[in-house]
Amino acid sequence: MEIQDHSFGKHYLVEFIGCPSRRIAYIDDIREVFLEAARLSGATILESYFHQFEPQGVTGMIFIAESHFSIHTWPESGYAAFDILTCGAMAPEKAIDHLKQALQAARVEVRVFTRGFNDL
Amino acid sequence: MEIQDHSFGKHYLVEFIGCPSRRIAYIDDIREVFLEAARLSGATILESYFHQFEPQGVTGMIFIAESHFSIHTWPESGYAAFDILTCGAMAPEKAIDHLKQALQAARVEVRVFTRGFNDL
Repeated sequence: MEIQDHSFGKHYLVEFIGCPSRRIAYIDDIREVFLEAARLSGATILESYFHQFEPQGVTGMIFIAESHFSIHTWPESGYAAFDILTCGAMAPEKAIDHLKQALQAARVEVRVFTRGFNDL
Repeated sequence: MEIQDHSFGKHYLVEFIGCPSRRIAYIDDIREVFLEAARLSGATILESYFHQFEPQGVTGMIFIAESHFSIHTWPESGYAAFDILTCGAMAPEKAIDHLKQALQAARVEVRVFTRGFNDL
Protein backbone atom coordinates (compact mmCIF):
# COMPACT_ATOMS: atom_id res chain seq x y z
CA MET A 1 0.00 0.00 0.00
CA GLU A 2 1.27 3.42 -0.88
CA ILE A 3 1.22 5.96 1.93
CA GLN A 4 -0.78 8.99 0.86
CA ASP A 5 0.70 12.37 1.62
CA HIS A 6 -1.79 15.11 2.48
CA SER A 7 0.29 18.25 2.58
CA PHE A 8 -1.59 21.50 3.04
CA GLY A 9 1.28 23.94 3.04
CA LYS A 10 4.38 25.24 4.74
CA HIS A 11 4.66 26.95 8.10
CA TYR A 12 7.58 29.40 8.43
CA LEU A 13 8.70 30.32 11.95
CA VAL A 14 11.01 33.32 11.73
CA GLU A 15 12.99 35.11 14.47
CA PHE A 16 14.05 38.72 13.85
CA ILE A 17 16.86 39.50 16.30
CA GLY A 18 18.65 42.73 17.09
CA CYS A 19 16.00 45.12 15.76
CA PRO A 20 16.19 48.76 16.93
CA SER A 21 13.29 49.13 19.34
CA ARG A 22 11.94 52.20 17.53
CA ARG A 23 11.28 49.98 14.49
CA ILE A 24 8.99 47.56 16.32
CA ALA A 25 7.38 49.48 19.18
CA TYR A 26 4.10 50.78 17.75
CA ILE A 27 1.45 49.80 15.22
CA ASP A 28 2.47 52.72 13.02
CA ASP A 29 5.99 51.23 12.80
CA ILE A 30 4.70 47.81 11.80
CA ARG A 31 1.50 48.12 9.79
CA GLU A 32 2.80 49.20 6.40
CA VAL A 33 5.95 47.10 6.34
CA PHE A 34 3.98 44.04 7.41
CA LEU A 35 1.30 44.52 4.74
CA GLU A 36 3.98 45.24 2.14
CA ALA A 37 5.73 42.00 3.13
CA ALA A 38 2.50 40.11 2.46
CA ARG A 39 2.03 41.84 -0.90
CA LEU A 40 5.63 41.10 -1.97
CA SER A 41 5.17 37.41 -1.17
CA GLY A 42 2.28 37.28 -3.62
CA ALA A 43 -0.32 36.62 -0.92
CA THR A 44 -3.96 37.56 -1.46
CA ILE A 45 -4.74 39.81 1.51
CA LEU A 46 -8.24 39.45 2.95
CA GLU A 47 -8.15 41.32 6.28
CA SER A 48 -5.57 42.63 8.73
CA TYR A 49 -5.69 43.39 12.44
CA PHE A 50 -3.28 44.99 14.89
CA HIS A 51 -3.13 45.26 18.66
CA GLN A 52 -1.02 47.78 20.55
CA PHE A 53 0.45 46.68 23.88
CA GLU A 54 1.27 49.26 26.56
CA PRO A 55 3.75 50.81 26.91
CA GLN A 56 5.04 49.21 23.69
CA GLY A 57 4.89 46.06 21.59
CA VAL A 58 2.58 45.00 18.79
CA THR A 59 0.66 41.96 17.59
CA GLY A 60 -0.30 41.94 13.93
CA MET A 61 -2.23 39.35 11.94
CA ILE A 62 -3.03 39.23 8.26
CA PHE A 63 -5.67 36.85 6.97
CA ILE A 64 -4.67 35.78 3.47
CA ALA A 65 -6.43 33.47 1.04
CA GLU A 66 -3.41 31.18 1.47
CA SER A 67 -3.72 31.17 5.35
CA HIS A 68 -1.97 33.76 7.57
CA PHE A 69 0.84 36.07 8.59
CA SER A 70 1.47 36.93 12.25
CA ILE A 71 3.97 39.13 14.03
CA HIS A 72 4.62 39.79 17.73
CA THR A 73 7.22 42.30 18.87
CA TRP A 74 9.28 42.79 22.05
CA PRO A 75 10.90 46.20 21.51
CA GLU A 76 12.76 46.10 24.82
CA SER A 77 14.55 42.95 23.59
CA GLY A 78 14.90 43.99 19.95
CA TYR A 79 13.03 40.85 19.00
CA ALA A 80 10.10 40.02 16.72
CA ALA A 81 8.48 36.59 16.27
CA PHE A 82 7.05 36.21 12.77
CA ASP A 83 5.20 33.33 11.18
CA ILE A 84 3.68 32.58 7.80
CA LEU A 85 1.36 29.69 7.11
CA THR A 86 1.14 29.41 3.36
CA CYS A 87 -1.13 26.98 1.57
CA GLY A 88 -0.77 28.02 -2.05
CA ALA A 89 1.77 29.42 -4.48
CA MET A 90 3.66 32.19 -2.71
CA ALA A 91 7.18 33.47 -2.20
CA PRO A 92 7.55 33.71 1.61
CA GLU A 93 11.26 34.51 1.33
CA LYS A 94 10.35 37.85 -0.26
CA ALA A 95 8.30 38.73 2.81
CA ILE A 96 11.16 37.69 5.10
CA ASP A 97 13.71 39.72 3.13
CA HIS A 98 11.49 42.79 3.21
CA LEU A 99 10.90 42.56 6.96
CA LYS A 100 14.60 41.97 7.65
CA GLN A 101 15.42 45.23 5.86
CA ALA A 102 12.51 47.24 7.22
CA LEU A 103 12.98 46.12 10.84
CA GLN A 104 16.78 46.44 10.49
CA ALA A 105 17.24 43.01 12.04
CA ALA A 106 20.85 42.13 12.80
CA ARG A 107 20.07 38.42 12.54
CA VAL A 108 17.27 36.26 11.14
CA GLU A 109 16.51 32.62 11.85
CA VAL A 110 14.07 30.68 9.70
CA ARG A 111 12.56 27.24 10.26
CA VAL A 112 10.11 25.68 7.81
CA PHE A 113 7.66 22.88 8.59
CA THR A 114 5.19 21.02 6.40
CA ARG A 115 1.59 21.14 7.62
CA GLY A 116 -0.82 18.28 6.99
CA PHE A 117 -0.58 14.54 7.52
CA ASN A 118 0.17 11.15 6.04
CA ASP A 119 -2.27 8.27 5.98
CA LEU A 120 -1.21 5.64 8.49
CA MET B 1 31.42 33.05 28.32
CA GLU B 2 27.97 31.78 29.11
CA ILE B 3 25.53 31.71 26.21
CA GLN B 4 22.43 33.68 27.07
CA ASP B 5 19.11 32.08 26.26
CA HIS B 6 16.36 34.49 25.20
CA SER B 7 13.28 32.34 25.08
CA PHE B 8 9.99 34.14 24.45
CA GLY B 9 7.62 31.22 24.48
CA LYS B 10 6.47 28.03 22.81
CA HIS B 11 4.89 27.59 19.41
CA TYR B 12 2.52 24.62 19.10
CA LEU B 13 1.74 23.34 15.59
CA VAL B 14 -1.21 20.97 15.79
CA GLU B 15 -2.86 18.86 13.07
CA PHE B 16 -6.47 17.74 13.58
CA ILE B 17 -7.08 14.83 11.23
CA GLY B 18 -10.26 12.91 10.37
CA CYS B 19 -12.75 15.57 11.52
CA PRO B 20 -16.33 15.26 10.24
CA SER B 21 -16.68 18.05 7.70
CA ARG B 22 -19.85 19.40 9.34
CA ARG B 23 -17.74 20.22 12.43
CA ILE B 24 -15.32 22.50 10.61
CA ALA B 25 -17.18 23.96 7.63
CA TYR B 26 -18.60 27.25 8.89
CA ILE B 27 -17.78 30.01 11.34
CA ASP B 28 -20.74 28.99 13.47
CA ASP B 29 -19.20 25.53 13.89
CA ILE B 30 -15.83 26.94 14.95
CA ARG B 31 -16.30 30.20 16.83
CA GLU B 32 -17.46 29.00 20.22
CA VAL B 33 -15.29 25.89 20.49
CA PHE B 34 -12.24 27.88 19.45
CA LEU B 35 -12.88 30.65 22.00
CA GLU B 36 -13.64 28.07 24.68
CA ALA B 37 -10.33 26.34 23.88
CA ALA B 38 -8.52 29.63 24.49
CA ARG B 39 -10.38 30.18 27.77
CA LEU B 40 -9.60 26.65 28.98
CA SER B 41 -5.90 27.17 28.30
CA GLY B 42 -5.92 30.15 30.64
CA ALA B 43 -5.22 32.67 27.89
CA THR B 44 -6.26 36.29 28.25
CA ILE B 45 -8.40 36.90 25.17
CA LEU B 46 -8.06 40.36 23.62
CA GLU B 47 -9.82 40.11 20.24
CA SER B 48 -10.99 37.41 17.84
CA TYR B 49 -11.61 37.39 14.10
CA PHE B 50 -13.06 34.85 11.67
CA HIS B 51 -13.19 34.59 7.91
CA GLN B 52 -15.59 32.34 6.00
CA PHE B 53 -14.34 30.77 2.78
CA GLU B 54 -16.80 29.78 0.03
CA PRO B 55 -18.30 27.26 -0.28
CA GLN B 56 -16.78 26.14 3.04
CA GLY B 57 -13.72 26.44 5.26
CA VAL B 58 -12.81 28.88 8.00
CA THR B 59 -9.86 30.90 9.23
CA GLY B 60 -9.99 31.98 12.86
CA MET B 61 -7.53 34.06 14.86
CA ILE B 62 -7.56 34.97 18.52
CA PHE B 63 -5.29 37.72 19.80
CA ILE B 64 -4.31 36.87 23.37
CA ALA B 65 -2.14 38.76 25.82
CA GLU B 66 0.24 35.79 25.58
CA SER B 67 0.39 35.97 21.69
CA HIS B 68 -2.08 34.08 19.44
CA PHE B 69 -4.29 31.17 18.45
CA SER B 70 -5.01 30.40 14.79
CA ILE B 71 -7.09 27.77 13.02
CA HIS B 72 -7.60 26.99 9.33
CA THR B 73 -10.01 24.29 8.19
CA TRP B 74 -10.33 22.11 5.08
CA PRO B 75 -13.72 20.43 5.56
CA GLU B 76 -13.46 18.46 2.33
CA SER B 77 -10.33 16.80 3.73
CA GLY B 78 -11.49 16.53 7.34
CA TYR B 79 -8.43 18.53 8.34
CA ALA B 80 -7.75 21.56 10.53
CA ALA B 81 -4.37 23.26 11.04
CA PHE B 82 -4.15 24.81 14.50
CA ASP B 83 -1.37 26.79 16.11
CA ILE B 84 -0.77 28.44 19.46
CA LEU B 85 2.03 30.86 20.18
CA THR B 86 2.19 31.23 23.92
CA CYS B 87 4.49 33.62 25.74
CA GLY B 88 3.33 33.36 29.31
CA ALA B 89 1.88 30.88 31.79
CA MET B 90 -0.77 28.85 29.98
CA ALA B 91 -1.94 25.27 29.54
CA PRO B 92 -2.05 24.78 25.75
CA GLU B 93 -2.76 21.05 26.14
CA LYS B 94 -6.19 21.94 27.56
CA ALA B 95 -7.00 23.86 24.40
CA ILE B 96 -5.81 20.95 22.26
CA ASP B 97 -7.86 18.42 24.24
CA HIS B 98 -10.97 20.55 23.97
CA LEU B 99 -10.62 21.02 20.22
CA LYS B 100 -9.93 17.32 19.67
CA GLN B 101 -13.23 16.49 21.38
CA ALA B 102 -15.24 19.30 19.84
CA LEU B 103 -14.00 18.74 16.29
CA GLN B 104 -14.24 14.95 16.76
CA ALA B 105 -10.75 14.52 15.36
CA ALA B 106 -9.75 10.90 14.77
CA ARG B 107 -6.08 11.79 15.15
CA VAL B 108 -4.03 14.67 16.51
CA GLU B 109 -0.38 15.48 15.91
CA VAL B 110 1.42 18.05 18.02
CA ARG B 111 4.84 19.62 17.54
CA VAL B 112 6.26 22.19 19.94
CA PHE B 113 9.03 24.68 19.17
CA THR B 114 10.76 27.25 21.33
CA ARG B 115 10.60 30.81 19.99
CA GLY B 116 13.37 33.28 20.62
CA PHE B 117 17.14 33.11 20.24
CA ASN B 118 20.49 32.50 21.87
CA ASP B 119 23.29 34.99 21.96
CA LEU B 120 26.04 33.89 19.57
